[in-house]
Amino acid sequence: MTGKTNHGRFFEDYALGQVIVHAVPRTLGQGERALYHALYPARHSLHSSDEFARASGLSASPLDDLVAFHTVFGKSVPDISLNAVANLGYAEGRWLASVWPGDTIASTSEVIGLKQNSNGRTGVVWVRTTGRNQDGIDVLSYVRWVMVRKRDPEAPAPETVVPDLAQVVAPESLVVPRGLDFTGYDFALAGEPHRLSDYAPGEIIDHVDGVTVEEAEHMMATRLWQNTAKVHFDATNREDGRRLVYGGHVISLARALSFNGLANAQMIVGLNAGAHANPCFSGDTVRAWSQVLDIAKTGSPGVGAIRLRLVATKAGNGTELRGADGKYHPHVLLDLDYWALMPV
Amino acid sequence: MTGKTNHGRFFEDYALGQVIVHAVPRTLGQGERALYHALYPARHSLHSSDEFARASGLSASPLDDLVAFHTVFGKSVPDISLNAVANLGYAEGRWLASVWPGDTIASTSEVIGLKQNSNGRTGVVWVRTTGRNQDGIDVLSYVRWVMVRKRDPEAPAPETVVPDLAQVVAPESLVVPRGLDFTGYDFALAGEPHRLSDYAPGEIIDHVDGVTVEEAEHMMATRLWQNTAKVHFDATNREDGRRLVYGGHVISLARALSFNGLANAQMIVGLNAGAHANPCFSGDTVRAWSQVLDIAKTGSPGVGAIRLRLVATKAGNGTELRGADGKYHPHVLLDLDYWALMPV
Amino acid sequence: MTGKTNHGRFFEDYALGQVIVHAVPRTLGQGERALYHALYPARHSLHSSDEFARASGLSASPLDDLVAFHTVFGKSVPDISLNAVANLGYAEGRWLASVWPGDTIASTSEVIGLKQNSNGRTGVVWVRTTGRNQDGIDVLSYVRWVMVRKRDPEAPAPETVVPDLAQVVAPESLVVPRGLDFTGYDFALAGEPHRLSDYAPGEIIDHVDGVTVEEAEHMMATRLWQNTAKVHFDATNREDGRRLVYGGHVISLARALSFNGLANAQMIVGLNAGAHANPCFSGDTVRAWSQVLDIAKTGSPGVGAIRLRLVATKAGNGTELRGADGKYHPHVLLDLDYWALMPV
Repeated sequence: MTGKTNHGRFFEDYALGQVIVHAVPRTLGQGERALYHALYPARHSLHSSDEFARASGLSASPLDDLVAFHTVFGKSVPDISLNAVANLGYAEGRWLASVWPGDTIASTSEVIGLKQNSNGRTGVVWVRTTGRNQDGIDVLSYVRWVMVRKRDPEAPAPETVVPDLAQVVAPESLVVPRGLDFTGYDFALAGEPHRLSDYAPGEIIDHVDGVTVEEAEHMMATRLWQNTAKVHFDATNREDGRRLVYGGHVISLARALSFNGLANAQMIVGLNAGAHANPCFSGDTVRAWSQVLDIAKTGSPGVGAIRLRLVATKAGNGTELRGADGKYHPHVLLDLDYWALMPV
Repeated sequence: MTGKTNHGRFFEDYALGQVIVHAVPRTLGQGERALYHALYPARHSLHSSDEFARASGLSASPLDDLVAFHTVFGKSVPDISLNAVANLGYAEGRWLASVWPGDTIASTSEVIGLKQNSNGRTGVVWVRTTGRNQDGIDVLSYVRWVMVRKRDPEAPAPETVVPDLAQVVAPESLVVPRGLDFTGYDFALAGEPHRLSDYAPGEIIDHVDGVTVEEAEHMMATRLWQNTAKVHFDATNREDGRRLVYGGHVISLARALSFNGLANAQMIVGLNAGAHANPCFSGDTVRAWSQVLDIAKTGSPGVGAIRLRLVATKAGNGTELRGADGKYHPHVLLDLDYWALMPV
Repeated sequence: MTGKTNHGRFFEDYALGQVIVHAVPRTLGQGERALYHALYPARHSLHSSDEFARASGLSASPLDDLVAFHTVFGKSVPDISLNAVANLGYAEGRWLASVWPGDTIASTSEVIGLKQNSNGRTGVVWVRTTGRNQDGIDVLSYVRWVMVRKRDPEAPAPETVVPDLAQVVAPESLVVPRGLDFTGYDFALAGEPHRLSDYAPGEIIDHVDGVTVEEAEHMMATRLWQNTAKVHFDATNREDGRRLVYGGHVISLARALSFNGLANAQMIVGLNAGAHANPCFSGDTVRAWSQVLDIAKTGSPGVGAIRLRLVATKAGNGTELRGADGKYHPHVLLDLDYWALMPV
């Protein structure tokens, strides 16, 4: 056996300011669009219909915003999270340009924070990951932080640097796709009559439907984004013989389910925060509810922004997220905070 | 919780003559074509090969006729069958124009019949559903009727109107795609030597092969058509914890299996009748047989029409459909009556 | 019931020199590319990124070499292996031209060898199968031999002709895609720093990762190539109720897994030999290791060839292939010998 395979980076392999070029750029196309619709109950009209997108000022229907996210994220896995113990959080995510069929996406990550844990065996790494298309245009940028094992517990701790991250992406920094215009928006074709002014901060929407997850589906989805983390594919990897569903699969499921009640929250443009509260496994029936957190204007005609908490659950009722101990209830899978664009 | 989600229409929400615009138009492409081949053992050459389609006078291979059907049908589910107790029948289905990669399909339904059941808790709704492409050209039209729950059993019954539907689509009203010409048909490449004159009304063909259905497959297929009926996706929806396979999935499986013996029944152009005789579940092994019901001419060179009964079963032998009580045998899944085009 | 269905050829239906035109040409596109990435953990950059392919002198990213193989192979199944007892071997496989989205592939087989077995009930058939695109250009040619049942054990044995097959495709006969140039190869984007000169014959690489196989996945893959062999799809076909995974599915899984350690073995250009050592079933966790067998030059700038043994296993450790009895160990699924192109 020779040492040509990638066993992933360990905590001591990261240095502040380091920029990692992630391998294997990926050309996305009509096939990825179709698979997204086969794998998730996605129905937002701007991502379903070229005609709807054209009537909204775009040249055609861009790929789902989460296709961009999963692709950029997937590229980073072999370098960032192959030895991760946990994916701890997201911040400052902004979608900067739409991704179109035929675009080739590559991604890089810059290490912006490091903190060894007190146990001396793990540490937290903060990276800002950026996806870029074939023309060198940034399409997405976000921060995530992961807990990573040390290869050698005796390796010296790096200087602790915890980045100062925004709690929320400021609405004025959200990027609305060029040309987007919701002044002629067709609410009947979009599926619901509710416009931005119909939503109020604090409002909670139960998205009603549930989807029972299958192994083949989450593996196909995760593979499609070239995410290589063993836990998703290899039933022998965990002692309990279960494969862990990629957290991003739950994000896409919940976002697609949120169509029912949020059909007009058309495009995701900002990611404020996110927690994968509990693991998801095949056989779980995923449901979702959303809470309106904020509402904002944009400079584009007829286009507003809505800040939403999107929660995915696997059972249980109600919208209480945490117990008396401050921990997420075991049925909570995802707690995501994002900005979407909606007709005003 | 706020009331922004769609809980579907109930019987008293329909009115005769009402036209319902279904939401979320859908652009179909090369990805849907590939997925159709991955999900069904489809091999009809006109839908498999651009070259074969060109040699038959078309500009390229259109999307499978059932892709058009499932898409148009799927759009109608949130408005027509979300609270349906049963999908009772089809009639007067005609494929009016081919669907090509890049086309965007929207659909509308007109209520053409209403009849409250004697129990006062349900009623039958007849709708004529029409799919239309981005140029406003109708691609498919068919009638279906469903049994729908009433929201309020006390709501007054509407006037009973039962539409007068044709038993069979008249062969002279079938639309042959413009340019279709089978005079130079290559039977070797198509897979079988049998032409229309080799088939005789009454003849029965056992299609031999079987396909065991998986949850991931029927859910991916059904999602691809943006069909939102809970029973297909949510294992907690039924008391027995089983997900019901979308009836259209069985249609596509059976039609694809019918290649073996009907390889030259290339395009579906008419839907005369159809019954989903019994539910299909994951683990069932679906088989199919066909009976030739009629044969007809068309005005296009070398192109004839064959009327077929297509039966899907999940076990059991023989071609007896019903027991002494007149009811379908429990192993019969589908009893479909359609017209296809075949070289004369 | 009438006899219009294909029950496949039996041993006595083959004659030396016979050329069989396989039915149902297939147009391949962006959808097949996306599905390949969903079904296999494929990451070789030349097949993932149009930009990487252009930087390597090609006009865009061709479809994966194994997409061509599976398609050409799948066409041949109804004529060659529907009644096959076993797929015995491969030889003299050469990829002759890349397959691009939009290409239509048809295939033919010539019978080049026949040998009745001493039991009188089966025989071995050798065929040379060739895939051709819509321009009449050969894209792939390979020899395989299968053991086929006789319909009638009393049928006379044909004259025994065993073709003289090359043990290895001579490296000078390998076809490098026109224009391929690895002189500006970007090892960071490709994912690994190892070039041809870093590998030595005899070297063994453990590809580390494992993939647990699901029924839905192998059936979707096998259907996508229009492979019709019952054993892959019909759980009632075998007494044990198990569906056999198509051997080519294991080839693609193992090849994709081999990215980890052989990321720069970009394109498959030759198939020297191959054995499906043991059957693979749903639930098996497939792993892979490779051994470098040879290294050669090509006439293209910066492009070398590496001959690899690719072994897929379903459990067990170590790289011993056979027991004392000369038979493959039960955990060995695949033993493949191929040539790939790699930057020198």
